[in-house]
Amino acid sequence: MTKPHVTASHHSSQMFERIALIGVGLIGSSISHACRRAGLAGEIVGSARTPATVETAVKLGLISQGYVTAAEAAEGADLVILCTPVGLCGPIAKEIAHSLKPGAILTDVGSVKTAIVNDVAPHVPEGVHFVPGHPIAGTEQSGPEAGFAELFDGRWCILTPTPNTDGKAVEKLTAFWEALGSKVEIMTPEHHDLVLAITSHVPHLIAYNIVNTAANLERVTDSEVIKFSAGGFRDFTRIAASDPTMWRDVFLNNKDAVLDMLGRFTEDLTALQRAIRFGEGDTLFDMFSNARAIRRGIVQAGQDTAAPDFGRTPARSEPATAKSKRA
Amino acid sequence: MTKPHVTASHHSSQMFERIALIGVGLIGSSISHACRRAGLAGEIVGSARTPATVETAVKLGLISQGYVTAAEAAEGADLVILCTPVGLCGPIAKEIAHSLKPGAILTDVGSVKTAIVNDVAPHVPEGVHFVPGHPIAGTEQSGPEAGFAELFDGRWCILTPTPNTDGKAVEKLTAFWEALGSKVEIMTPEHHDLVLAITSHVPHLIAYNIVNTAANLERVTDSEVIKFSAGGFRDFTRIAASDPTMWRDVFLNNKDAVLDMLGRFTEDLTALQRAIRFGEGDTLFDMFSNARAIRRGIVQAGQDTAAPDFGRTPARSEPATAKSKRA
Repeated sequence: MTKPHVTASHHSSQMFERIALIGVGLIGSSISHACRRAGLAGEIVGSARTPATVETAVKLGLISQGYVTAAEAAEGADLVILCTPVGLCGPIAKEIAHSLKPGAILTDVGSVKTAIVNDVAPHVPEGVHFVPGHPIAGTEQSGPEAGFAELFDGRWCILTPTPNTDGKAVEKLTAFWEALGSKVEIMTPEHHDLVLAITSHVPHLIAYNIVNTAANLERVTDSEVIKFSAGGFRDFTRIAASDPTMWRDVFLNNKDAVLDMLGRFTEDLTALQRAIRFGEGDTLFDMFSNARAIRRGIVQAGQDTAAPDFGRTPARSEPATAKSKRA
Repeated sequence: MTKPHVTASHHSSQMFERIALIGVGLIGSSISHACRRAGLAGEIVGSARTPATVETAVKLGLISQGYVTAAEAAEGADLVILCTPVGLCGPIAKEIAHSLKPGAILTDVGSVKTAIVNDVAPHVPEGVHFVPGHPIAGTEQSGPEAGFAELFDGRWCILTPTPNTDGKAVEKLTAFWEALGSKVEIMTPEHHDLVLAITSHVPHLIAYNIVNTAANLERVTDSEVIKFSAGGFRDFTRIAASDPTMWRDVFLNNKDAVLDMLGRFTEDLTALQRAIRFGEGDTLFDMFSNARAIRRGIVQAGQDTAAPDFGRTPARSEPATAKSKRA
């Protein structure tokens, strides 16, 4: 499961001698692509729990050396990135503790931060710098084949160091994420978890929920739900196609903030429901109009394009051949 | 506000001498583009309430003659299509009743059907064939500039004739939608409203609701919501950018089915919330896994592509230049 040593393409921009990716799914593989695009690493090694995944990652050139144990991958690395589901970060930190090189930076990409700080920090040895992180980027796909170098371009990466975290390590990790294409913001783990509960966790929960509601109706068949999904439902199923293990761990580990935000969502939905029941058209119109302002902000901030989505983007970008594709 | 007569490009495929579009927003303008692509009409005329919209529609070549009253547009047409928000269909039907030509087909594109049958049918004169319809297609954009010929390609159009509707008129309208690129399904207005409540109306309501919940938090700023939207929230704001007038009318006119589906959604969400509160990981994992099967069905049915969405589709389709765009 090894491959000839992969040399970085731009040696001058090298920031780390050896980067270890613990887990090579969508995020881990995208970090590898983006690292190699910018020439940030002397070598990139990695581990995955299943030998087949390790083999795929080596074949794809994501890692030059692959291991089935995280401890072997972490050995000698000056940057170790935990790219596994959130629930595994604590056990892995414990496993790799004795392999971590003094002066190494340990970070993660988990979608929750308070629980990770609680689970990982106790295992980090003196002299190793733990800087929790979370790149806010992704697609609904998973696995080593899903990654691509542009995933982090223009996206935000949040770092949540504690007051005790070494300032130089935070600076170096900030520079690393910027070199991957990201913008970096620093906040507390608690605030991160609250922000992400509303911008990511609750939206995913709602998407999963409505897909299941639709699947369990007696008077509307699954086949009808699928055929007529272009009316809006389709976009929810896209979000609900994300990795179930990752999302289970998110909800188990950000319980308080998610329940808090879910309470507000339900409160607001009840008010909307009441406006529908009593035919309050102006209330509905005002709420719908307000939502457009937030959308404009997102497009202006470069976090999405204003191009319309009608579910088959490729067809629109090839106006002349769109018809022939269906023939 | 008139323009030289526009001749159809394929005279042999002409199905109607004169088509009148009452309203030239996203759907009306897309019907015009698709009609002209297939050469279905001798001429396409239309009306809009504001003179500026009429002018734009004529300038864009969507209609060869434009009017500010629906009655003038409908005069002499053998196909009249109501492409306005649902709440206007009844009043417009009343207004145009005396202008409709004997033997003409009157249809609509409204997202609810029972209310439209109730509001429109009483005004339709003897000898005019009213066939309610609903193309399940759209984007989050609106207005005459938003339309394009491919909008209906491969999408379903639902027709909801009553037992009294003339069979020949239903056949002709079916052939018309097929020529626009659609597949056609026939069902009752009541069943249509139930299916669309879950595949379209409730998803839109939920998207609007979470955007407003996010906008009204005290501990998370709007600017944070916008910056970190790439985690999932962004896709909800896209849906919530749809036309507020259209959606107000949908909810006011499909109250019963929407409240029914919303009740189930909330019931299911409460169960999920409970699973999170009590840390029931297996329940969460199973629900999230089930949702993937529906997604696969939609991709297989051609109602979406499997290509990952990360909010900036153009960048991914130009791998070589994606980097330079940001530089």
